[in-house]
Amino acid sequence: MSTLSVFMDVPLAHKLEGSLLKTYKQDDYPNKMFLAYRVCMTNEGHPWVSLVVQKTRLQISQDPSLNYEYLPTMGLKSFIQASLALLLGKNSQAIVENRVGGVHTVGDSGAFQLGVQFLRTWHKDARIVYIISSQKELHGLIFQDVGFTVYEYSIWDPKKLCMDPDILLNVVEIPHGCVLVMGNIIDCKLTPSGWAKLMSMIKSKQIFPFFDIPCQGLYTSDLEEDTRILQYFVSQGFEFFCSQSLSKNFGIYDEGVGILVVVAVNNQQLLCVLSQLEGLAQALWLNPPNTGARIITSILCNPALLGEWKQSLKEVVENIMLTKEKVKEKLRLLGTPGSWGHITEQSGTHGYLGLNSQQVEYLVRKKHIYIPKNGQINFSCINANNINYITEGISEAVLLTEGSEMCLPKEKKP
Amino acid sequence: MSTLSVFMDVPLAHKLEGSLLKTYKQDDYPNKMFLAYRVCMTNEGHPWVSLVVQKTRLQISQDPSLNYEYLPTMGLKSFIQASLALLLGKNSQAIVENRVGGVHTVGDSGAFQLGVQFLRTWHKDARIVYIISSQKELHGLIFQDVGFTVYEYSIWDPKKLCMDPDILLNVVEIPHGCVLVMGNIIDCKLTPSGWAKLMSMIKSKQIFPFFDIPCQGLYTSDLEEDTRILQYFVSQGFEFFCSQSLSKNFGIYDEGVGILVVVAVNNQQLLCVLSQLEGLAQALWLNPPNTGARIITSILCNPALLGEWKQSLKEVVENIMLTKEKVKEKLRLLGTPGSWGHITEQSGTHGYLGLNSQQVEYLVRKKHIYIPKNGQINFSCINANNINYITEGISEAVLLTEGSEMCLPKEKKP
Repeated sequence: MSTLSVFMDVPLAHKLEGSLLKTYKQDDYPNKMFLAYRVCMTNEGHPWVSLVVQKTRLQISQDPSLNYEYLPTMGLKSFIQASLALLLGKNSQAIVENRVGGVHTVGDSGAFQLGVQFLRTWHKDARIVYIISSQKELHGLIFQDVGFTVYEYSIWDPKKLCMDPDILLNVVEIPHGCVLVMGNIIDCKLTPSGWAKLMSMIKSKQIFPFFDIPCQGLYTSDLEEDTRILQYFVSQGFEFFCSQSLSKNFGIYDEGVGILVVVAVNNQQLLCVLSQLEGLAQALWLNPPNTGARIITSILCNPALLGEWKQSLKEVVENIMLTKEKVKEKLRLLGTPGSWGHITEQSGTHGYLGLNSQQVEYLVRKKHIYIPKNGQINFSCINANNINYITEGISEAVLLTEGSEMCLPKEKKP
Repeated sequence: MSTLSVFMDVPLAHKLEGSLLKTYKQDDYPNKMFLAYRVCMTNEGHPWVSLVVQKTRLQISQDPSLNYEYLPTMGLKSFIQASLALLLGKNSQAIVENRVGGVHTVGDSGAFQLGVQFLRTWHKDARIVYIISSQKELHGLIFQDVGFTVYEYSIWDPKKLCMDPDILLNVVEIPHGCVLVMGNIIDCKLTPSGWAKLMSMIKSKQIFPFFDIPCQGLYTSDLEEDTRILQYFVSQGFEFFCSQSLSKNFGIYDEGVGILVVVAVNNQQLLCVLSQLEGLAQALWLNPPNTGARIITSILCNPALLGEWKQSLKEVVENIMLTKEKVKEKLRLLGTPGSWGHITEQSGTHGYLGLNSQQVEYLVRKKHIYIPKNGQINFSCINANNINYITEGISEAVLLTEGSEMCLPKEKKP
């Protein structure tokens, strides 16, 4: 017999992992630091916003000619067009051949949700997904919810302290017909023959690539360079999905500015896939939000504003590289054992410190510096105010745990 | 064996029904008219925007103190609080007893999507949903996608030309444990004993109510009056979901400004339900869009702006009532057979003309006036420029089809 109340038997949901932020927030220590924010931070410790965004937002709100009507389910057409050209390059073979399209989604979670719903219906054989570890927490659940078995992988070699092309080639030894979620692998120095092997394995194993490009331009500040991998897959005639988010590289975090990009082998197949996606998006949110997309479109379609945005990306990336240099230099000056060149060899806001789990644990528990277990931090969280405390902490962690098998005494959990 | 391409076997999706707008758009007739827009239109034929919204949008974009960071998954807290108080009244028993909450969603489709995903998981017995016919096209698919059997109902009596309380009482003769999607039934004049019977049947049959309040304030311009039914259900101790949309009553169409409202029997159950909804929303879009919610919160929390908004609602509703009066009067003056009092007896933007399917077909095919098969139109689409053509068309349709069983000759479809 069913109960009288639908709600009566509903338990409190388990919070997702990713409780690092939660533990940080509960910590009363005054000098605590969180180095795992998802977004690029300013020197003042705020999420970065490109100045041209604020200017454009104001211009838009003063324009009486604009309407605020529902967007079509597929989204703002000019936003999609401009974003696809940004992602793949205006002269991309796929764009010229009219076999690339996109659906404007509510952020990158929306893009993954939409893509996964499509795969559930139209790629029924695929029930396993491999997700790059940094994105597993964010997107793994979406696959899991529709019945996928989710495995994570990492191409970071903690011994060699680099992104190892051999690990990547091992990753694609996954079972036939899987979905492979790939991030940017710009720091993974594949040789031409490595590339050829990668492509041929993905093709022969019928692996479906689902790219995740969360912040084009924030790796190297060279927009083309940052999506080189996509251009390579396009040139090899692959079909794939790509989640393109424009939140982090413009600094519009509170609006869903994502696109599920579809690259097909021809226009006919593209139209079929897009038509199915439209039906799915209709049920999910019917109309995507406009504000963020409108701002971004205004910038991408205006050469002067576009120039300002590119310049702002350049400044951000230079600033991050400078921070990395300083961290490396300070660690050397502190006589920290080990080589720290890997810090500056990695692109983008996030990078591996190259610490082991003991050292990470030491930093979190003794120094109140919150970093994920794998030691991958957001370097833009480091600034003039905290760099000394952080580098001294790292140095201490390395010195105290070096060569020892000793475990830190476990503190009682509150 | 699986195919080499995931996309290869994907067919073109069938377009949803609701192709009235599509047919209208394809019609080359210069004086064609579409009377079924979802939103309130101005006399100039544009979607209505409350003036105070434009003012507030500009103020917000000029405020340097605001940040544009990700909203929490549950959304903008102040927006939810202000909207719940608007929906149920500040002194609502449920608010005082801390047993009402909400999740900020991407519009009302997002609210239904979230609610339906919850019901799929936690109300497994329910596999049938009854949806009021005007909302079936929009929300029925969402239920259908997760395996519900969808039935539609209408409480409009085309013979008596009114919302019939007896039909409503028959509707709740649905099977035990169903979900019942109810719109505003303000025009359905239930007697006190009718209300008592309705409540008792919903209770004894363990029907789960899912309300849809798409435009509070646009029925009678009295915000409290417009949600009287919710207050009644709250007072009777029901648990329910309600999709609250704030797009149409503010005129912010291009931002997802919806809330899935949860009313539980106590705070403990509420927290459990909200925690489960948070997990679902995380997978759907992770962070809802902010702009629309921010504008609405600014208005609802500022007495002067709130006053301006209420005044704007009043003007809109008065204008619609005036239009209805004019339509009725013109139909009388044209000597149109029949009584047209039902036009002004209905509240809100949308109302039944009281035409049969022959008459509707005549209007669409001969006069290029596009109205849905059930004859329910959006009266705000009628203005000084088109009222004569429309009323003359209606009159002609009624005169030509009156008393006859004759079918209009079918035109060949292109």
